[in-house]
Amino acid sequence: MIQKLIEKIQKTKAPIVVGLDPMLNYIPEHIQKKAFAEYGETLEGAAEAIWQFNKEIIDKTWDLIPAVKPQIAMYEQFGIEGLKAFQKTVDYCHEKDLVVIGDIKRGDIGSTSAAYAAGHLGSVQVGSAVCRGFDEDFVTVNPYLGTDGVKPFVDVCKKEKKGLFILVKTSNPSSGEFQDRLVDGRPLYELVGEKVAQWGDECMGCSYSYVGAVVGATYPEMGKVLRKIMPKAYILVPGYGAQGGKGADLVHFFNEDGLGAIVNSSRGIIAAYKQEQYAKFGPERFGEASRAAVEDMIADIQGALENR
Amino acid sequence: MIQKLIEKIQKTKAPIVVGLDPMLNYIPEHIQKKAFAEYGETLEGAAEAIWQFNKEIIDKTWDLIPAVKPQIAMYEQFGIEGLKAFQKTVDYCHEKDLVVIGDIKRGDIGSTSAAYAAGHLGSVQVGSAVCRGFDEDFVTVNPYLGTDGVKPFVDVCKKEKKGLFILVKTSNPSSGEFQDRLVDGRPLYELVGEKVAQWGDECMGCSYSYVGAVVGATYPEMGKVLRKIMPKAYILVPGYGAQGGKGADLVHFFNEDGLGAIVNSSRGIIAAYKQEQYAKFGPERFGEASRAAVEDMIADIQGALENR
Repeated sequence: MIQKLIEKIQKTKAPIVVGLDPMLNYIPEHIQKKAFAEYGETLEGAAEAIWQFNKEIIDKTWDLIPAVKPQIAMYEQFGIEGLKAFQKTVDYCHEKDLVVIGDIKRGDIGSTSAAYAAGHLGSVQVGSAVCRGFDEDFVTVNPYLGTDGVKPFVDVCKKEKKGLFILVKTSNPSSGEFQDRLVDGRPLYELVGEKVAQWGDECMGCSYSYVGAVVGATYPEMGKVLRKIMPKAYILVPGYGAQGGKGADLVHFFNEDGLGAIVNSSRGIIAAYKQEQYAKFGPERFGEASRAAVEDMIADIQGALENR
Repeated sequence: MIQKLIEKIQKTKAPIVVGLDPMLNYIPEHIQKKAFAEYGETLEGAAEAIWQFNKEIIDKTWDLIPAVKPQIAMYEQFGIEGLKAFQKTVDYCHEKDLVVIGDIKRGDIGSTSAAYAAGHLGSVQVGSAVCRGFDEDFVTVNPYLGTDGVKPFVDVCKKEKKGLFILVKTSNPSSGEFQDRLVDGRPLYELVGEKVAQWGDECMGCSYSYVGAVVGATYPEMGKVLRKIMPKAYILVPGYGAQGGKGADLVHFFNEDGLGAIVNSSRGIIAAYKQEQYAKFGPERFGEASRAAVEDMIADIQGALENR
C-alpha cells in the first residue's frame, strides 16, 4: 500500500491528504435540514448529514488527491450510527480508488492491539469464514505502550501489505509536555522516532517502509531532525492550514527525492466555503470551495518544494 | 460516578472489575453454533455470540461486583456489528446498575478528544436535540498528547460527573520502553502520575477524584510509588491473574483507608471454565465457573488486604 500511496502522489503531484473530519457546524444547513427531515434530529440524522457532506467533498476532489484521512472520533461521537457513516466513507473512497488512512490513534497491550489491527487493517476468523471489519489502508497508532503494543499492527501490515503512521511528535500545543522531555539529553520523540525506524526496517514496501510516522506541521525544526532519524519512514504531517502550518515550513519533512511526506489538511479544505477566500462559492457549492482549497494547497506545497 | 463506584465497592466488599474482553475462542461452542445458525458465519454471527456470552456472565456475576470493563477493541475487531454488541453490553450492565468502565484508551488533539469524550461519556447536539452515544461511566485515556488531549475528557467528566482512568504505567512487558525512561533522573511514568494528580485536583468527587490512573498489577513496586504520587486518584489495576499479578502483590496499590484501587481480571474470569480449577463446570455452565472465579478473586484480594 505504501507503493500505491507513492504512485498516487506522483501521479497527482499532490503530497497531500484530505482530512475528512466533519463537525456538524461545518455542514451547510441545506444538508443538515434534508437529513433531519428524513431521519429526525437523531444520531441517525447526524450520521446521514455527515455522509452526504463527505460524499460531495469526495466527488469534487477525488481526482486531485491521492488519499483521505477520516478521523474516526468525529464519527464515533455519534455512536453506532456515526460509525456506519465512517464505514460508508471508507468504502466510497475505495470505490474512487483513494488510499484511506484511518486516523484512529489506537494502541494497547499485545492481544488488544491485535484486535484493533484485525478490525481496521486485517480480518477476523468467524467459524470457517474470514470477515473484514473497517478495512482501511493505513491507520495511525499511539506508541505509549512500546513495542508489544505496536508489533501486532506491524504483523498485520506485513501480511496485508498495508501501513501505519505512528505518533512521534503531535501537532497540538501541549504535545511537548511528555514528548519533548529529555531522556539522556535527547527528547523522547527522537527515541520514539528511532523505534519507528527499527520497526519499519523489517517491513520495507519499496524505498519506503510500511511503517510511517506522524510529525506535526507546527514543529518544523523537529520535523527536520526526525526526517534524518527515520529516513525510510513516510511522514504524515497534520497541522497544515487551520492549525498554523504553511507550505514553506514543510520542505524539510520531505526527502531529497521529493517524497517521504504527506501533508494533511482537514478544516481548511472541508470547511473552505466558510473562509473569506472561498466565500464566493457559498454554502450550496461547498464542494467546489473544497476543490479550490485543494488546488491552492497543492500549489503552495509544490511551490515550496520547487523553491527548496 | 466515583462516589457510586466507591459505594458499590464498599457494599460488595469487592474492589474488582470484570473485564468483558471476549475472544471468539473463549466462547463455548454451543453459543457460537446457535449464533452462527441464526446469523451465519458473519460479523453479525460473531457479535451475537459475544453478546450472548457476555449476557450469561453478567447474569451470573452482577450481584457480586461493582463494575465491568469492556475492552472496546474486542468488539471493534468485528466492525459495526461488534460495536453494536459493545453498546448492548454497556446498556445491559447499566440495567443491572453496574458501573461501566469503557476501556477505549483514546486520546488525541483537543477538538478530537472532545469528540471522543462526547461520544463515550457525554452528549452531542443534533439540531435542537441532545443525543447520547455509547454512554459509559468511565473511560481509559492515553496521555501521550499531553494536557490539551486530556482536558476535554476532564471537562466532560466535570459536567456529567463521570470519570477517567489515565494510562500511567501499563501492564505489558514492553511498557518500560518509553514509560520507564528517566527524565531528570525520574521515570516518565512518575511525571505522568504527577500530571494525573494535577488534572484530578480540579475535579474531586469526594475524597477521591474523577480522574484516576491505570497502573499494571505486574509492576507492584512502581504501584507503591505511584500510590503516593497520586493519593487521591483511584487506580485501575489490570494484569491480575492471566497476566501474572496476585492479590498479595497488590496491597500497595490501595490507600490506608482500604480504598483507592480496583483490580481488573478479564480472561481469568470470563474464560474460567477453561482452567483446570473450574473445569468441573464444563462449557455449558461457563457462567457459574465465572462466578466461582469472581468469588475466589475477591477472597484473594480481601485476604491480602487483611494481612497487609
